[in-house]
Amino acid sequence: MHIELLTIGNELLLGQVVDTNAVELAKELSAAGIRVTRRATVGDDGAAIADAVRDALARTGAVITTGGLGPTRDDITKAAVARLLDAPLEFSDEVWGHVLERYRHFGRTPAESNRSQAEVPRGATVLRNRWGTAPGLWLDAPMPSGGLVVMLPGVPLEMRLLLQHEVLPRLRARADGTVVRSRTVRTTGVAESTLAEAIGNIEPEIAPLTLAYLPGVDGVDLRVTAWSLPAADADARLAAAIRALRMRAPRAVYGEDDTDLAAAVLNAARARGLTLAVAESCTGGLVGARITAVPGSSEVFLGGIVAYTDLIKQQLLEVPHALIAEHGAVSEAVACAMAEGVRRNFGASVTVSVTGIAGPTGGSEAKPVGTVWLATAAERGTQAVRKVFGGSRADIRARAAQAALWLMLERMGAP
Amino acid sequence: MHIELLTIGNELLLGQVVDTNAVELAKELSAAGIRVTRRATVGDDGAAIADAVRDALARTGAVITTGGLGPTRDDITKAAVARLLDAPLEFSDEVWGHVLERYRHFGRTPAESNRSQAEVPRGATVLRNRWGTAPGLWLDAPMPSGGLVVMLPGVPLEMRLLLQHEVLPRLRARADGTVVRSRTVRTTGVAESTLAEAIGNIEPEIAPLTLAYLPGVDGVDLRVTAWSLPAADADARLAAAIRALRMRAPRAVYGEDDTDLAAAVLNAARARGLTLAVAESCTGGLVGARITAVPGSSEVFLGGIVAYTDLIKQQLLEVPHALIAEHGAVSEAVACAMAEGVRRNFGASVTVSVTGIAGPTGGSEAKPVGTVWLATAAERGTQAVRKVFGGSRADIRARAAQAALWLMLERMGAP
Repeated sequence: MHIELLTIGNELLLGQVVDTNAVELAKELSAAGIRVTRRATVGDDGAAIADAVRDALARTGAVITTGGLGPTRDDITKAAVARLLDAPLEFSDEVWGHVLERYRHFGRTPAESNRSQAEVPRGATVLRNRWGTAPGLWLDAPMPSGGLVVMLPGVPLEMRLLLQHEVLPRLRARADGTVVRSRTVRTTGVAESTLAEAIGNIEPEIAPLTLAYLPGVDGVDLRVTAWSLPAADADARLAAAIRALRMRAPRAVYGEDDTDLAAAVLNAARARGLTLAVAESCTGGLVGARITAVPGSSEVFLGGIVAYTDLIKQQLLEVPHALIAEHGAVSEAVACAMAEGVRRNFGASVTVSVTGIAGPTGGSEAKPVGTVWLATAAERGTQAVRKVFGGSRADIRARAAQAALWLMLERMGAP
Repeated sequence: MHIELLTIGNELLLGQVVDTNAVELAKELSAAGIRVTRRATVGDDGAAIADAVRDALARTGAVITTGGLGPTRDDITKAAVARLLDAPLEFSDEVWGHVLERYRHFGRTPAESNRSQAEVPRGATVLRNRWGTAPGLWLDAPMPSGGLVVMLPGVPLEMRLLLQHEVLPRLRARADGTVVRSRTVRTTGVAESTLAEAIGNIEPEIAPLTLAYLPGVDGVDLRVTAWSLPAADADARLAAAIRALRMRAPRAVYGEDDTDLAAAVLNAARARGLTLAVAESCTGGLVGARITAVPGSSEVFLGGIVAYTDLIKQQLLEVPHALIAEHGAVSEAVACAMAEGVRRNFGASVTVSVTGIAGPTGGSEAKPVGTVWLATAAERGTQAVRKVFGGSRADIRARAAQAALWLMLERMGAP
């Protein structure tokens, strides 16, 4: 089963709010095996709403709208759809009863404008909204002029609950039992094009699954998707595709699906009985923040030192002044001394240090903005690596934090 | 001037990522007085892309696309638009030169698949991308079959920078002179309803501007918006509205527009010749990360200690063992000792400490999840405050970091 989404509201076209309804609908419908083929957004404009619904019905035969069902002047979805599908609005005593009941519950009296909320296009099924006053509407008009139009309120909580309780059960009954399902292999430290070359032309092997490369500051995610397959078949094919991707791109993979690299680091340390600490300069606390974002991190993570000045590097990390004077704070020697210093001070098994130039200023020809030295210290010695990251100050810092976590994972002999 | 947006990617139809590009484009274009009349999203499907671009051109005559310009097999926007507008792809030595240069900068060699990034539809203007390898493309094909098609990469940072530096200047030159413009008063530490009570019915005073309350983990933003006014008129009215809001809600305001609280803290310290340091437990580095996210923070910020275990609090922050044993790590006494300890160790003028229970476990009746003690230490003594924050572990940590920054600002006698 295919469907389109239409989200309605001037605030969406002005970019003042994020369209979380579209994300939620897309996610839930996909998971239920209903394929969203298109999303669109129009403003609070009857003609634009009618045009968009008409186009969606002509293309796909089914559309879910959100927004424009409230009691105020800019709520015009119902009237626009009623006109388009020739289903005149009729006053529903049942819906009006729900509105009155809801107001009574909060000790209020409805305004005259609320009466419009009780108007329903002829032939529509009312999807009772227990969480607000605007009901959802399910209108199954005969094709080709018609098709399925489901109207939901724009308030995210009300939309979500109506979707779960009223819309998905009805749509599932029409769907054919197949699912749209994705899995992800997460990589870091390797460019998208390099990864694509290592993986090569894997598409025939994994077909009918599709592969997408999703680059971000944390690395490149490889997402495989099964479209319209029975659930068991989809799962088996996805598992096989994940194995195939892992074989072709072994070095850069740190996990699957929602795995966070910091969680992988903590799991590896926990499994080996190791403790961790960090020494940060240019990341200023980001590595610690990433690690401690994971619940239960205190079992393994002791803490860290943010040494943002040369003096603090000397005093709290015992980096010799001569090293900084000779090599500069962003150097292999200083990165190693920082990792070793924090290891001594905290008594941790494995530590990582980060020192770099996050920009926008402070770069030079020899050490351009984005230059970062990272080092790991452990019982068997200290290892350092130099990276040059691109992007904004925030990107460089995020990439450096991700690289620090990856180094720790590697150092522990994982993944 | 009217324009439509088309964001491209299966991941958007699957609800796997939030469409931040559409939000950013809508916001920036509206601010520039260019009206976004419609947004749509299609998957990585050449026919769907071509259909959507054709429809947008027929309706509005101008469309900006994002996504599908990368080097991998699922990047097909350029080819789809080239076919639609009968503008065959031609290899551009200039673009290839940029790709090579970018790879050289990072010490890498481009893969064979990168050559496709140098292909440009005939007649297109190349919008040079200094932040990635995929250039933007500006294609002004004759109407009615054509119209303006601007293609931008889907990587958010690259999209944003190309929009700012290449697209908006060109579009502004075509627009009518009125603007949609917003300004924001930023507050923290006060609930939305309390703030609304303090501000009262300010709407008649600021009309025709509109006011929106935007609550988030960092506090409540008050946004006033001028719709379709000449720029000078909009600016004058917005400035007056900002003054009126500041008068009514003086206590909680830390800045305007894009002001970040960490930047305000750094400015206050810089103006007073003070240095800063932090001692973090439950925030695990977040406060340091917030501060060092601001360029130039090293002039003022010395660093910090992340003391995630009791032992590290004793060893590195000199918190007496007896205090922890008697009051627990999340207590006024320990927060004060942490702030004083980091102040001694770093020799900083003003410090802040955070110790709390971020959850999801670890709470008790006396100290529920969300309980956080914060303290500031300065020459004139130490002050502590207890907060109980709601939300997820991530929310509680973010709110605690924001509260720590606000405490430092207050302690310095600002704002």
